Amino acid sequence: MKNVEGYSKKVRTPGEKTGLGPGALVFVGKPRPEAVRVDVIHYDEGRLVELYDVSAEECANLVAQKGVTWINVTGIHDVELIGKLGKCLGLHPLTTEDVVNTAQRPKVEEFPDYIFIVLKMIYLGQRTDETDTEHLSLILGSNFVVLFQEKEGDVFDGVRERIRSAKGRIRSMGADYLAYALIDSVVDHYFLFVEHFGDVIEDLDDRIIEDPKPEDLALLHKIKQNIIKIRKVVWPLREEIRVLEKGESPLIRSDTRVFLRDVSDHIMQIVEMIETFRDLISGLHDLYLSNVSNRMNEIMKVLTLIATVFMPITFIAGIYGMNFEYMPELKWRWGYFAVLAVMLLVVLAMIGFFRKKKWL
Amino acid sequence: MKNVEGYSKKVRTPGEKTGLGPGALVFVGKPRPEAVRVDVIHYDEGRLVELYDVSAEECANLVAQKGVTWINVTGIHDVELIGKLGKCLGLHPLTTEDVVNTAQRPKVEEFPDYIFIVLKMIYLGQRTDETDTEHLSLILGSNFVVLFQEKEGDVFDGVRERIRSAKGRIRSMGADYLAYALIDSVVDHYFLFVEHFGDVIEDLDDRIIEDPKPEDLALLHKIKQNIIKIRKVVWPLREEIRVLEKGESPLIRSDTRVFLRDVSDHIMQIVEMIETFRDLISGLHDLYLSNVSNRMNEIMKVLTLIATVFMPITFIAGIYGMNFEYMPELKWRWGYFAVLAVMLLVVLAMIGFFRKKKWL
Amino acid sequence: MKNVEGYSKKVRTPGEKTGLGPGALVFVGKPRPEAVRVDVIHYDEGRLVELYDVSAEECANLVAQKGVTWINVTGIHDVELIGKLGKCLGLHPLTTEDVVNTAQRPKVEEFPDYIFIVLKMIYLGQRTDETDTEHLSLILGSNFVVLFQEKEGDVFDGVRERIRSAKGRIRSMGADYLAYALIDSVVDHYFLFVEHFGDVIEDLDDRIIEDPKPEDLALLHKIKQNIIKIRKVVWPLREEIRVLEKGESPLIRSDTRVFLRDVSDHIMQIVEMIETFRDLISGLHDLYLSNVSNRMNEIMKVLTLIATVFMPITFIAGIYGMNFEYMPELKWRWGYFAVLAVMLLVVLAMIGFFRKKKWL
Amino acid sequence: MKNVEGYSKKVRTPGEKTGLGPGALVFVGKPRPEAVRVDVIHYDEGRLVELYDVSAEECANLVAQKGVTWINVTGIHDVELIGKLGKCLGLHPLTTEDVVNTAQRPKVEEFPDYIFIVLKMIYLGQRTDETDTEHLSLILGSNFVVLFQEKEGDVFDGVRERIRSAKGRIRSMGADYLAYALIDSVVDHYFLFVEHFGDVIEDLDDRIIEDPKPEDLALLHKIKQNIIKIRKVVWPLREEIRVLEKGESPLIRSDTRVFLRDVSDHIMQIVEMIETFRDLISGLHDLYLSNVSNRMNEIMKVLTLIATVFMPITFIAGIYGMNFEYMPELKWRWGYFAVLAVMLLVVLAMIGFFRKKKWL
Amino acid sequence: MKNVEGYSKKVRTPGEKTGLGPGALVFVGKPRPEAVRVDVIHYDEGRLVELYDVSAEECANLVAQKGVTWINVTGIHDVELIGKLGKCLGLHPLTTEDVVNTAQRPKVEEFPDYIFIVLKMIYLGQRTDETDTEHLSLILGSNFVVLFQEKEGDVFDGVRERIRSAKGRIRSMGADYLAYALIDSVVDHYFLFVEHFGDVIEDLDDRIIEDPKPEDLALLHKIKQNIIKIRKVVWPLREEIRVLEKGESPLIRSDTRVFLRDVSDHIMQIVEMIETFRDLISGLHDLYLSNVSNRMNEIMKVLTLIATVFMPITFIAGIYGMNFEYMPELKWRWGYFAVLAVMLLVVLAMIGFFRKKKWL
Repeated sequence: MKNVEGYSKKVRTPGEKTGLGPGALVFVGKPRPEAVRVDVIHYDEGRLVELYDVSAEECANLVAQKGVTWINVTGIHDVELIGKLGKCLGLHPLTTEDVVNTAQRPKVEEFPDYIFIVLKMIYLGQRTDETDTEHLSLILGSNFVVLFQEKEGDVFDGVRERIRSAKGRIRSMGADYLAYALIDSVVDHYFLFVEHFGDVIEDLDDRIIEDPKPEDLALLHKIKQNIIKIRKVVWPLREEIRVLEKGESPLIRSDTRVFLRDVSDHIMQIVEMIETFRDLISGLHDLYLSNVSNRMNEIMKVLTLIATVFMPITFIAGIYGMNFEYMPELKWRWGYFAVLAVMLLVVLAMIGFFRKKKWL
Repeated sequence: MKNVEGYSKKVRTPGEKTGLGPGALVFVGKPRPEAVRVDVIHYDEGRLVELYDVSAEECANLVAQKGVTWINVTGIHDVELIGKLGKCLGLHPLTTEDVVNTAQRPKVEEFPDYIFIVLKMIYLGQRTDETDTEHLSLILGSNFVVLFQEKEGDVFDGVRERIRSAKGRIRSMGADYLAYALIDSVVDHYFLFVEHFGDVIEDLDDRIIEDPKPEDLALLHKIKQNIIKIRKVVWPLREEIRVLEKGESPLIRSDTRVFLRDVSDHIMQIVEMIETFRDLISGLHDLYLSNVSNRMNEIMKVLTLIATVFMPITFIAGIYGMNFEYMPELKWRWGYFAVLAVMLLVVLAMIGFFRKKKWL
Repeated sequence: MKNVEGYSKKVRTPGEKTGLGPGALVFVGKPRPEAVRVDVIHYDEGRLVELYDVSAEECANLVAQKGVTWINVTGIHDVELIGKLGKCLGLHPLTTEDVVNTAQRPKVEEFPDYIFIVLKMIYLGQRTDETDTEHLSLILGSNFVVLFQEKEGDVFDGVRERIRSAKGRIRSMGADYLAYALIDSVVDHYFLFVEHFGDVIEDLDDRIIEDPKPEDLALLHKIKQNIIKIRKVVWPLREEIRVLEKGESPLIRSDTRVFLRDVSDHIMQIVEMIETFRDLISGLHDLYLSNVSNRMNEIMKVLTLIATVFMPITFIAGIYGMNFEYMPELKWRWGYFAVLAVMLLVVLAMIGFFRKKKWL
Repeated sequence: MKNVEGYSKKVRTPGEKTGLGPGALVFVGKPRPEAVRVDVIHYDEGRLVELYDVSAEECANLVAQKGVTWINVTGIHDVELIGKLGKCLGLHPLTTEDVVNTAQRPKVEEFPDYIFIVLKMIYLGQRTDETDTEHLSLILGSNFVVLFQEKEGDVFDGVRERIRSAKGRIRSMGADYLAYALIDSVVDHYFLFVEHFGDVIEDLDDRIIEDPKPEDLALLHKIKQNIIKIRKVVWPLREEIRVLEKGESPLIRSDTRVFLRDVSDHIMQIVEMIETFRDLISGLHDLYLSNVSNRMNEIMKVLTLIATVFMPITFIAGIYGMNFEYMPELKWRWGYFAVLAVMLLVVLAMIGFFRKKKWL
Repeated sequence: MKNVEGYSKKVRTPGEKTGLGPGALVFVGKPRPEAVRVDVIHYDEGRLVELYDVSAEECANLVAQKGVTWINVTGIHDVELIGKLGKCLGLHPLTTEDVVNTAQRPKVEEFPDYIFIVLKMIYLGQRTDETDTEHLSLILGSNFVVLFQEKEGDVFDGVRERIRSAKGRIRSMGADYLAYALIDSVVDHYFLFVEHFGDVIEDLDDRIIEDPKPEDLALLHKIKQNIIKIRKVVWPLREEIRVLEKGESPLIRSDTRVFLRDVSDHIMQIVEMIETFRDLISGLHDLYLSNVSNRMNEIMKVLTLIATVFMPITFIAGIYGMNFEYMPELKWRWGYFAVLAVMLLVVLAMIGFFRKKKWL
């Protein structure tokens, strides 16, 4: 365990790596003050060892022994430690480069001795219309799994529990099943997330049908952006997990493939939900605009009604407000009432016209 | 038959399964108070046995005998019973997990001993603009079919009738033909559904061309959402049934494949209808907006006409309503009538201008 | 020939077949009062026999003889007759089911002994903005072609003429060439149809550029719906004829394949025209809306001009129409003319402002 | 050479061929008064013969000799001549049918003895926003190329020059290279055309950003239609030339394939430019509408400002224009000035409100 | 090194090459005054030679020796020099033609002796909303790389540094790795570029949500055009690099393929970012229009409110401004106040109406 001091707050972007050679270990992302921690769970059907703050060499030792070794690395901002661990476990420099690059997109890459899987964890941000993503890298070797997590706190306690209590088949299966279990936990967590947005969209739908407000539009825009974000995370996974499932890597045993098919199916379900959301959001946007346009229409009708009714009669009033010396009507006994009657007629005619045009 | 008591009303979502291991039997969906019921029809060309409220062990016994066994499970909220049945029939834990997961999307999965098919039944809801879906799972073994239904009431009475009366070829064919017949019934039922929306859209078309109303827009939005829902149910089926038809599973005999091609063709027809609906709805939405915009235009023209005609003449009347001591026109004998004539000229000029611009 | 009596006027839809087994012969479509008629042309290079009102058995006899037999069935609402004919010619129940189902989409299906082709004929309806479709089924056997037409009147007189006059190669070639000739006639007829809509769209284009009217929008909507209809008919054909052409069915000789490639090319041309129409229509719709919006803009400018010019000066007139006892200006000798001058200045200022804003 | 007399001006469409058999030679297009002319260039590495007004039989003779023969047919409205030429050279009737059908889309068809290529030449029309297309057909035999042109004037003078002057490799290569050179000339000419529209679009972009006018919209619409036209011509070529390049026809030697790959690449470039234009045009259309909408907004603001400022104060003036006998304010010494002050306050309040709303 | 004098400023376009034969060396692009310079770096694991202003023949000599030769050509407007170099290195005429054609799209072409790769460098223009592209061509032979750059200044100093300092594996690997390193530098540079636009879009998002301005729309339009430009540059690369990676060319060793996969992955990431930008921009455009429409709505409401409130009461004032001799109300003691009260009532009624309609 190593404490990273004097870290800079600036988030580093992939563009800043320009000019460096391939395999150059540069952390891309938001630096964190916590030290990087390496924990290990080593188990086989009968035995279980849990170690905390393990050194890279110890990891290599454990991996050399029989049984499955789960090396869990929390924090990826200490490139020195990651590099050393990578060397001990025989990882390709391009792999370790991607492990510390939080801008790396999800992918699956087969190397001769291991499979390298990049995933993204999605969390709801503090405000419900914001999302955080966490960069996860998974190395599946013949008898070990290395999991690199960007920050503290994860969704794998269920897996740990099942290993500890020897519940289910996890203890009797190999590293490939462990990798599956970890991927499955991540994908399952996506559901929570996607369902949350499903609820928000449903609420919006009701609100927009009843009484569309400008705030709804801004919220719709926010959701749209979040959906784009999630899509970017889930979409590549879809093809990649399918490759794992159908692939011929000897690292994945055939009875684990059935489980990978299940994960693949879950991802498809999430992809479909996201696509449905896109359709729904686009529909809601159209509905919002149409509703606003309808209201505008209604307002315009009222304005036109008022204007067309009052302008003519105000004009008539104006006529008899003129100060000409010779205006015969002004002298008539019933002139005033006649004019009032004429005005009434004009109003009725206008309303009749409106009725005919179905504007009223 | 087992009565499920004290069930919770809350609908469970897939997200709530997060953290549980694979194959964990958790019912996802709206719990129901009725007990789960297992009925069996066992038949071959000469014989027919119908049994009600059969236990899991009896099912396994029947399956072991010669002839085709149709195990029909009504209700999937009793995970214990489903799990036991799954074990007796040798189903993979992932299969039983999907059977009780009503959020599972339609799919076809081949296992060594059976084919697992997930379908969705669609019903019209109480209001004609709402739809209900029912989760159906179909297990096709070498000589048995297990059909899991989410609730009471189904569309398979025609199939039962044909089995009982030995009408058509159903009694002389295997379990694969029975599976086909069940899938075919579900797909046929989609037609009813899709035709209903076709009628609704046609009605809307007439209404929107003649006299678009805001309610039509809301209805259009509802239909759109329903179409999205149906599409989600039918679209995956399309590829999956084609896989069954073209596939090499020994569980499906070649003379049944011709029938599967027919189902596949029906699904394509429904898919095309749905795509056509999407086009029509999008066209109707455009038409609605254009019509509303046309009306707005017409209203604006009237408003402009009235304003441009009356503003100038009201101004003239205002001029001669001023109280200046020295205003020579006021003293003129024919001043009043001259002003009226000028006003008339202004009105005519305005109308002429409008005519020229083709606004009138 | 059999007269169908007491037929119901109601158009039957595929949804009404729900619950019936596969292969159930149910007529789907608009029933017709005329009797179904079976005519036969039997020919080889030297011989030609034309028979009218032939029974199913006679058909089977003719087919058994050397030479090509063209069985032409006019009307498909007599399911009994169709069923009998199907049995005599050895058709699969699913084939005859599709023959009498006018809702069946275009498709090509290979059976061991024959190829089943479903086509749609398109006619212009009574109003030029309406289209009728006719369900055509074509069975291509080794030495016979059965053509099922929904109603009287067809586009195959050219083919008949060529057979009778032994013009071109038709008499010297097999049943596959006859099938090609019939399909070719149908596809050629599509051109007439598509060209008609091309002309209508071109007319509309001119009208909308010059002077867009609400009626144009309704017409555009109608054309769009018709294009969707035609597309649904032509689109599946595209892939299917290509399958025929590239396929390995022994029923189609290699020198006929060159001709099928030609049909396939024609269909592609129609598909491209339809796609172009979609683009043009969408462009016209945009143009219509933009033009309407431009006009609205122009109208608004006039309204604003009038309002902004007359409101201030009317206000000034209103000021001096007040009846205050002490209003010094009223007493001034040139007060009236000064006010008129001020009003003129205001008008000029307003017009200047409009000029600067380029609104005038 | 044959003079076609008494030709009809009517443009014939493919639909008019309905009912005629396949291979029927009917000219589709705009008839022309000029006679059809057949010119021949016959060459090998050492020799060059140029002949004008050659008969069909002479052509066949030349083709039978060693060396490459380029038969250039100007005008395709004399179906008799074309038919005779086709027979002499052994062309399939469907080929000659397509040669004289100017509505035929671009395609490449392999026949046992030759490859048939249909291209379209695009010319700028008289007005810069109009385009003309010319139907070109190319027959590539083992040692000859037949080029059918719809009208006088072409873009192949560069090729003729290179043959005459024995520049480059053209004289030392076969008929396939000649065909390539001709196709390349056509495709190169597309660039001129596409670049012209690129310039027009760029101009429009500047104009629309600065000051959008309704004429710009009409021009945009015209360009869009032209782009659709070009796309229709270029798009099918893309796949077809690729087929030629990757194909296995013995008529195309491997060292010519490198050149075809180059043409294929040019076509891709044009296709990409067209797609970019579509994006740009759609962007410009959006920008136009948004700008118009912005202006409308600005105009509405002015209107609203004027109306909301003057309506209240005009009303106040109206109040004191009333002729009630008892209106105490009218008698006040400073009443008039007080009212003017109130009006000023109202105006200031209104302007303040506008400022706050950021409308001013 | 050759100085190009009297060069024309006119940018040449591909269309100007029309009529020239294939392989004609014509520079397409903006001519530059600087002379074209050829520099060479020749190295193997132990040795490093750097030469400046090398002649074509010297290049060929160096290539013939053991070790990797990197020939770097700055400036491609001297077609004579390029042509000579091409001949010395055995390049196909079509390759040199593409090298000097700056309009050439990115592509990868395999020739028997070398692989030809066209890339585009993207730079930010002087104004941050403008982009420049530079045409780069890369020839990968068995032991040499030729890099043609359009202008001075590049992004390859990192690669040069690594070669000079023998850092990383570059000195111990072949020409294929050098080619990879150069491509990688270009692709890495894209990140800088894409991230810049990402920031601009994010800024715009904030501004448009808060207070949309017409300038934002113009900027959005500019960004959109830039994104289209970048997309055109990156999109074809995607497929091409994948072809290199998966291809079977013996020029690329298997340990370099892992690195190409990495580049391929980076390109995918950029492509995804661009697609995301397109979505975001389209979303922003919608948001802008919706916000503008919302504001318009608000303004219309105010206008309508003012008009509907003041028109009726102004009319009432107008009534009592008439000069009829017999108007009883004028004589009433409280007439004036009664009228004022009526006006107040009208105003309240109007406001109530607005409240009910939720417009206020």
